[in-house]
Amino acid sequence: MIQGVGHIGILVRDLEQSARLYNEMFGATLAEVKVVEEQGVKVGMLSFQHGPLLELLEPLPNSRMAAALDKRGEGVQHISFDVDDIEKELAKLKDKMVSLIDQSPRQGVEGKVAFLHPRSTNGVLVELCQKE
Amino acid sequence: MIQGVGHIGILVRDLEQSARLYNEMFGATLAEVKVVEEQGVKVGMLSFQHGPLLELLEPLPNSRMAAALDKRGEGVQHISFDVDDIEKELAKLKDKMVSLIDQSPRQGVEGKVAFLHPRSTNGVLVELCQKE
Repeated sequence: MIQGVGHIGILVRDLEQSARLYNEMFGATLAEVKVVEEQGVKVGMLSFQHGPLLELLEPLPNSRMAAALDKRGEGVQHISFDVDDIEKELAKLKDKMVSLIDQSPRQGVEGKVAFLHPRSTNGVLVELCQKE
Repeated sequence: MIQGVGHIGILVRDLEQSARLYNEMFGATLAEVKVVEEQGVKVGMLSFQHGPLLELLEPLPNSRMAAALDKRGEGVQHISFDVDDIEKELAKLKDKMVSLIDQSPRQGVEGKVAFLHPRSTNGVLVELCQKE
């Protein structure tokens, strides 16, 4: 079952600078920053008093994400929905002929994740995430 | 004080069609649909089991939003943060030299709202909303 929005991914040039900005402007708090080499990205979660996190994504040099940042600039990159059973949701979406980027889940920062193709979801890049 | 993400605005071509899609794919439920003539948009809120809503925005013909949709296509349009005192937050942001689209709050669908300029917030169009 889809539970709700878990986080919103934001592509930024400088994670630490953006985290400072969101802290000064909105009181957001940065948790641990991780480098995910295989995704070509440095990741840090910003939390607020309540509700979903903002996931700041700073591309590593010469990565696919760096090329995306150069092409489209900073901004919202994806919306992540929490699910209780990612295998089951992917099977359901396949049955409905939804276009998937990931045919099966892979390991993400927070748990098992899979991306759907934005052409299936009104131009929004959607991630499903089964947290660990 | 900034409390957290209240909703995510998604620009779509056909609100009812998108709502059906998000219902079939993710079990999201559409609340009342409103036409906001002065904003040139038809608005409908999608809710999930928990967490923030998705605000579907379908531009009215010949509106500024229709031009934006033609130019950039469908996708995430803004992130809305709930605040307890919008006048106070705007004053704080002005003091920090943050670039504002709305210098003072105006009436939105859910309450008093004001938009910040994306150049202040890493390319993300941010709305502040003090709900009624």
